Amino acid sequence: MNQVGVGVIGVGLMGTLFARLASQLPDSKLVGVADADKDRAAKVGASLRVPAYANYSELLAVPQLDAVVVATPDSSHLEPALAAAQRGKHLLIEKPLATTPEDGLRIINACKAAGVRLMVGHTLRFDPNYGEAYKAIRSGKLGQVVHVNARRNTAISDAERLAGRVTITFYLGIHSIDAIQWIIGSPVVEVTAISVRKAMTKYNVDDTVMSLLRFENGAIGTLENSWIRPPGAGSRRIGASLLVMGTEGAFRIEPLQECITLYYPNSVEPLQPLFSFENTAFGKISGVYRDEFAHFIECVRIGASPIVSPEQALSSVVVCSAIEQSLRDARPVHIDQENVFN
Amino acid sequence: MNQVGVGVIGVGLMGTLFARLASQLPDSKLVGVADADKDRAAKVGASLRVPAYANYSELLAVPQLDAVVVATPDSSHLEPALAAAQRGKHLLIEKPLATTPEDGLRIINACKAAGVRLMVGHTLRFDPNYGEAYKAIRSGKLGQVVHVNARRNTAISDAERLAGRVTITFYLGIHSIDAIQWIIGSPVVEVTAISVRKAMTKYNVDDTVMSLLRFENGAIGTLENSWIRPPGAGSRRIGASLLVMGTEGAFRIEPLQECITLYYPNSVEPLQPLFSFENTAFGKISGVYRDEFAHFIECVRIGASPIVSPEQALSSVVVCSAIEQSLRDARPVHIDQENVFN
Amino acid sequence: MNQVGVGVIGVGLMGTLFARLASQLPDSKLVGVADADKDRAAKVGASLRVPAYANYSELLAVPQLDAVVVATPDSSHLEPALAAAQRGKHLLIEKPLATTPEDGLRIINACKAAGVRLMVGHTLRFDPNYGEAYKAIRSGKLGQVVHVNARRNTAISDAERLAGRVTITFYLGIHSIDAIQWIIGSPVVEVTAISVRKAMTKYNVDDTVMSLLRFENGAIGTLENSWIRPPGAGSRRIGASLLVMGTEGAFRIEPLQECITLYYPNSVEPLQPLFSFENTAFGKISGVYRDEFAHFIECVRIGASPIVSPEQALSSVVVCSAIEQSLRDARPVHIDQENVFN
Amino acid sequence: MNQVGVGVIGVGLMGTLFARLASQLPDSKLVGVADADKDRAAKVGASLRVPAYANYSELLAVPQLDAVVVATPDSSHLEPALAAAQRGKHLLIEKPLATTPEDGLRIINACKAAGVRLMVGHTLRFDPNYGEAYKAIRSGKLGQVVHVNARRNTAISDAERLAGRVTITFYLGIHSIDAIQWIIGSPVVEVTAISVRKAMTKYNVDDTVMSLLRFENGAIGTLENSWIRPPGAGSRRIGASLLVMGTEGAFRIEPLQECITLYYPNSVEPLQPLFSFENTAFGKISGVYRDEFAHFIECVRIGASPIVSPEQALSSVVVCSAIEQSLRDARPVHIDQENVFN
Repeated sequence: MNQVGVGVIGVGLMGTLFARLASQLPDSKLVGVADADKDRAAKVGASLRVPAYANYSELLAVPQLDAVVVATPDSSHLEPALAAAQRGKHLLIEKPLATTPEDGLRIINACKAAGVRLMVGHTLRFDPNYGEAYKAIRSGKLGQVVHVNARRNTAISDAERLAGRVTITFYLGIHSIDAIQWIIGSPVVEVTAISVRKAMTKYNVDDTVMSLLRFENGAIGTLENSWIRPPGAGSRRIGASLLVMGTEGAFRIEPLQECITLYYPNSVEPLQPLFSFENTAFGKISGVYRDEFAHFIECVRIGASPIVSPEQALSSVVVCSAIEQSLRDARPVHIDQENVFN
Repeated sequence: MNQVGVGVIGVGLMGTLFARLASQLPDSKLVGVADADKDRAAKVGASLRVPAYANYSELLAVPQLDAVVVATPDSSHLEPALAAAQRGKHLLIEKPLATTPEDGLRIINACKAAGVRLMVGHTLRFDPNYGEAYKAIRSGKLGQVVHVNARRNTAISDAERLAGRVTITFYLGIHSIDAIQWIIGSPVVEVTAISVRKAMTKYNVDDTVMSLLRFENGAIGTLENSWIRPPGAGSRRIGASLLVMGTEGAFRIEPLQECITLYYPNSVEPLQPLFSFENTAFGKISGVYRDEFAHFIECVRIGASPIVSPEQALSSVVVCSAIEQSLRDARPVHIDQENVFN
Repeated sequence: MNQVGVGVIGVGLMGTLFARLASQLPDSKLVGVADADKDRAAKVGASLRVPAYANYSELLAVPQLDAVVVATPDSSHLEPALAAAQRGKHLLIEKPLATTPEDGLRIINACKAAGVRLMVGHTLRFDPNYGEAYKAIRSGKLGQVVHVNARRNTAISDAERLAGRVTITFYLGIHSIDAIQWIIGSPVVEVTAISVRKAMTKYNVDDTVMSLLRFENGAIGTLENSWIRPPGAGSRRIGASLLVMGTEGAFRIEPLQECITLYYPNSVEPLQPLFSFENTAFGKISGVYRDEFAHFIECVRIGASPIVSPEQALSSVVVCSAIEQSLRDARPVHIDQENVFN
Repeated sequence: MNQVGVGVIGVGLMGTLFARLASQLPDSKLVGVADADKDRAAKVGASLRVPAYANYSELLAVPQLDAVVVATPDSSHLEPALAAAQRGKHLLIEKPLATTPEDGLRIINACKAAGVRLMVGHTLRFDPNYGEAYKAIRSGKLGQVVHVNARRNTAISDAERLAGRVTITFYLGIHSIDAIQWIIGSPVVEVTAISVRKAMTKYNVDDTVMSLLRFENGAIGTLENSWIRPPGAGSRRIGASLLVMGTEGAFRIEPLQECITLYYPNSVEPLQPLFSFENTAFGKISGVYRDEFAHFIECVRIGASPIVSPEQALSSVVVCSAIEQSLRDARPVHIDQENVFN
């Protein structure tokens, strides 16, 4: 395959990003977009000069289509994913794979049956800081992993935008779950979670979920996920971090550390342009999302397995579901799963 | 009282520091030291030019003695504290107050009965960073507290020195417990803890304990305590921090942020001289321990109540005991306690 | 001398601070304040419960007076300093010693003739970070000093308050000059300076002065001093720093690194309470100014030499004058001076 | 042009990097490498499976060759650049363009005469942090530029490797000169430089050069360049930074801020994988050098002007030459140049 023909189903924030990437990368070609919101589809299609469809079935019928990006709302991945697989299209699904293990498994099985590639957009795999962490653990120089503290707190504007349509665990927690299981090479086998709801009562969702984790290899961890970060706070230091302590050494990631800071009369603006959706100077997208999409396109082109395996993506769904069950039942929840991270 | 006569029982690391402070501060006078290790007592006594005793009863009989510092091992505070109270001596007890709620209560009651002051050395109260946090919460500008993430990880050299004589929760966790309850003004009402033991098997103690906390005011939290930090790592960023998220704002403390860094050919040495046991240039102790000791001396001199109340110190012991019970029983442990932090 | 009787001449920002310190420290006693602004003198005197004088001569006549703090405007130190010395009073002069080498020398000679102690308030000597730098250089572990980059940029609010009454070199630059010469143990022997004036034209002063420095020991340096820092910027990273590179190692000081950060909905507030004028929790002043004043009082009490020698303070005045001459003459200016820093 | 055929002359550190990039990017194709060191040429050629030449004239005769990368030693750019231009090949010259303004002008004129693209590898143009700085200045929100402090200090291992073959100003200083002139849009019109030589006497080169800069728009600056940074120090904070103060705001770049830190028993390793020569996880080069090379290839393919213009690259050579003249003559050196940065 010379250039991979790509269609995008769901052109909200992430879907639009993938559509733009598909139209910019040398090895992919955007052939159309679809969104149940007809106007939104039309607008994105027009800006990228491709056909737009309100019904994704029409997009799936486009002859040049090789691969599909599914970026519909978290709980609506199943239908379009199954339809695309059945038509033999390769699949990039924006994380999470699904919001229930059952849906996730059905998607995986459909892709296997159809013989198409399936990758889930777990972006942290493409953040080189996490890559260094993975290598450090694999090198053995940090010894055995003892404990992990993972934080992902997003700005309250995200919670307002999402307005209760997703849970914080499937929105934020799943990033950390995927990254940790991958880096330390061991799955979570038990979770205990508690939550608090003071600011987000209007949306009927929790402000913060905090969890204790036990891993198959004996390590333990905590997970902190919140979406009430003050809007002007920037993400620095209270937004995202990962600390892993081993018997011989440790590492800490603060991926959003600012490298340029602008000081205005009444404000300070720390920037992380290397992680932005849009490259500064040349009108092209660079950074982790581009690298993620390029990896998917290359896997499709050369027939390779993506570094995020379907089974690993499913495992993250299983752990997130267990966290939510622990919240409901107010007790530790055990998880039986094969180690698909080694 | 013009100058407070001070005796120190137990002259290990902390006891020796207090003895030196007592001999340096203008309002205190060191009148003697005691330690079951006769040689150690003699050495410290000689260096500070005061009498040294192997038996603390002899020290308690010194006429000029007004106040006693108890800095014996964590689990050996009860006896000397009761003896000192019964002889009418004011008491500064190095944290923790005791290692069981029962012992703690006996000490408090003895001090009440004797009409002497009792203060426990919860040093973070004297760290101005924590003072700012306290003020910020009290100002109401951060709204209601939603969640807390407290970390205290010490160097493995501390674990080697302590060799299993104390638990990590009473050694490190109690610092965070006291600080959080004080800052947010609400006690812990439930704890769930897990632990891991890979590096410290020889001492029969855990490497790391991680806990979920529920506070009376509805806030939740996580507590991370470990003593296997790599020796060359410095405390920066992986040593100690406290993040508190509120409905209107948040704060983060990294108290040991280096302000001077030395770069040698094969190493980097970040320093935090403002927290050191010994002032740089003038041979005198400054910093948080000095401020803590000076506060105790002033309370004794003018008859004021220390900012660490006996009941608050007891509450921290109660929470730490509950964490250890949760570890033993592998279940959440509820705590009934009056709110002594408001 | 049991308690040193202190009078303060000039009770602006710094003079008021010293008056409060004199009334708080156990070894000093504030006996009166003087200020040409009668109302200001009265207000400060009333708040600290001591007599206030519009004419400093009256203050100098108070019988219990042992030592005088001169905190009048930079260019008005000569007269009160000479008067105080002639009456046998020990002197703490807020930096700079004077704004001309001639005035500085007259003050030194008057103090020598009168046999009184003279100390200039070069605060950085009392910042433990600088103390560690001094020790690191003296240890020899960094090798020979090669180059120095010193920055002191203050907020534009300072420039507005000072309104052209002082130059930026005597206000800010002198801090760095004193610190560098002391730390590396070698005086400046040549300066070349340039300046720019865009924001401060209304006050007829420069915005920024930048200088090249040559030291007697062959090292070189740059000096950056500005007072147009954006008001909301905080001092972090663009306010003050010192980098020293040696043949075997290097160090960097960022003394105002925040250790607690408050995140509000529309702003971020980094705090450095350890350097504040007022201690957080106990209503007492702590930090570097307290340590500086306490050192002066101790030197007076026990008859010791202050760690800032009069000759070193004069040297800083000489270098700052040379920088201003270089600005006027647009050429390098050589400086002949004895090394009083070894 | 579908794919640009690229040859690389000089396969040291940078030349090898460009050869690998040429063989990896979809729009370029490596057709051969040349190096006077025959063995080195052969080794690189073999690893990338292209022909290797000891004589670059042979490489220039390869039919599929469209563009040439010149990565010979700094002072040996003239000959191969002229030869390539005369054969009609587009040119990417590793910075500096040349080590004298005369050589630089000859190369520019040759490219003009031949009608080929010429770009110089000023990498910071492709660092998104510098891109944000450029945009911030252009937005007008920082007001007029007042002063600039630029630092580039490299590890002593670089100085050892280069062994006096280049000067520190042409090796490091030129990076800052290009970036500052571009960002603030105004050329340097006067330089005053001093230097020191304590560690690098064996190579007969300076350890550190420090300069004062005046810009056409009235702003002033300092430049700090050293190559004696302790080997174990990492680049963080003492390696590279740029502070620009304006009348309305300011910015600071610390481009090499670590985002992941590894803590080993006896060392701390801060990493900046986003700037590394080699992407972590996928065996492909990403980061600023890739972006720079891709920009050159795109300019060649579509016939666009590179964002580093030949005249701007020449201007940086002129300023660096003036700095070295100032060092020789021990006086300020004025520079007449057209503003090619607006």
